[in-house]
Amino acid sequence: MTSLTFILGGARSGKSRHAEELIERLPAPWSYIATAEAYDAEMAERIGLHRARRGEGWQTLDAPHDLARTVAGLPPGRPVLVDCLTLWLTNRLLAEADLSAECAALVAALGAHDGPVVVVSNETGLGIVPDNALARRFRDAQGRLNQMVAARADTVIFMVAGLPMKVK
Amino acid sequence: MTSLTFILGGARSGKSRHAEELIERLPAPWSYIATAEAYDAEMAERIGLHRARRGEGWQTLDAPHDLARTVAGLPPGRPVLVDCLTLWLTNRLLAEADLSAECAALVAALGAHDGPVVVVSNETGLGIVPDNALARRFRDAQGRLNQMVAARADTVIFMVAGLPMKVK
Amino acid sequence: MTSLTFILGGARSGKSRHAEELIERLPAPWSYIATAEAYDAEMAERIGLHRARRGEGWQTLDAPHDLARTVAGLPPGRPVLVDCLTLWLTNRLLAEADLSAECAALVAALGAHDGPVVVVSNETGLGIVPDNALARRFRDAQGRLNQMVAARADTVIFMVAGLPMKVK
Repeated sequence: MTSLTFILGGARSGKSRHAEELIERLPAPWSYIATAEAYDAEMAERIGLHRARRGEGWQTLDAPHDLARTVAGLPPGRPVLVDCLTLWLTNRLLAEADLSAECAALVAALGAHDGPVVVVSNETGLGIVPDNALARRFRDAQGRLNQMVAARADTVIFMVAGLPMKVK
Repeated sequence: MTSLTFILGGARSGKSRHAEELIERLPAPWSYIATAEAYDAEMAERIGLHRARRGEGWQTLDAPHDLARTVAGLPPGRPVLVDCLTLWLTNRLLAEADLSAECAALVAALGAHDGPVVVVSNETGLGIVPDNALARRFRDAQGRLNQMVAARADTVIFMVAGLPMKVK
Repeated sequence: MTSLTFILGGARSGKSRHAEELIERLPAPWSYIATAEAYDAEMAERIGLHRARRGEGWQTLDAPHDLARTVAGLPPGRPVLVDCLTLWLTNRLLAEADLSAECAALVAALGAHDGPVVVVSNETGLGIVPDNALARRFRDAQGRLNQMVAARADTVIFMVAGLPMKVK
């Protein structure tokens, strides 16, 4: 059985915790694909907090860049949490990747996994237009990727202050 | 028959595409009122992409400043898409207009058109308070205008990753 | 009777007005706990506009810092509006308070009041990651506090362009 659930929300809106709860309702083991790169102390601390919250039953894979291939290499039937698209997209933008092609490949891989997939991403487009061009490029790419995943997903949830709102 | 539909959302949330789909369900011809000014290459590219997506049946009017009068001059019964209030408000803020009076006149014109109206706008108030005073003034004016249009509208839709959420 | 209603939204989304309408359905007198500090002209003007909108029946208490104790000192049965958590959190962050402990104490006080409580707060996490570290710390703390209040609340409302969306 395959299904794709997309959890979208702002910073500190409870996205990761809700995604973990959804996966933990399924039989273990569960795969956790982490996209963070610990390039500074602040990020290393956040990664550590996330890992500490996850208990037994989780197998962690790091895929800050090669996300589509990591998803494609999962064993059949395995529930997987991808956390999160925003860090992956940041890594690929800074690596000057072809974002359009890579996002298409990623969405195809997410849809092709033989097992339940939960994907976490940030909504970043609801503030004032950013001053710098790189931030605007990121915001546009993030919005487009979120639309692609949402169109493919069976269930889309928008998090508000830790509470899930069902959009689809 | 008259009706006012308000499509609100973040950057790259699928607002324009959803608005066009709503209008294209009605009998052609349709009026498209564009408020963008192509003051740099990035904006010119965005305008070009938007135009390229629209097919037969659309008549485009440019109203980067004189929006209320352009709406008032439409033929009776004509479906119209106004895309978008955010660019119009930016143009009027930079022109040092009396925003309070102009917003009131605009909302009156939108409500008075004899025909279906779909209006697109950005939600810009859900990030951190901007550093500079002009951005804060814009954000306040945008929030007030969005409230005025939403109060007048028959239908209000909040876009999340390309998916419409009905608010009213 | 006690109940906790949490009104969350962006800048100029009609949070305060909706919160006041909810309280004014109850028998007067009503307490209004203001958390703003008028440290510049722009803020002084906003405070003045908010006060001018409130009519008879309101008793205003200022608590830019000592919010939990002010809530705890209210008379039993008194309806109270706390407007807003965002300014209080800003004041406490700038005072270098222990935010984690103070947020826990505040949520406990809000939940313990013997009477209807309506609390207003901003959602600030839906834009691009802020450039500066203080803004990121604030955004994280605001998101965590919003989750804590939402978890405790009986009713949670997300404001969109002046319209209430019920989340819980």
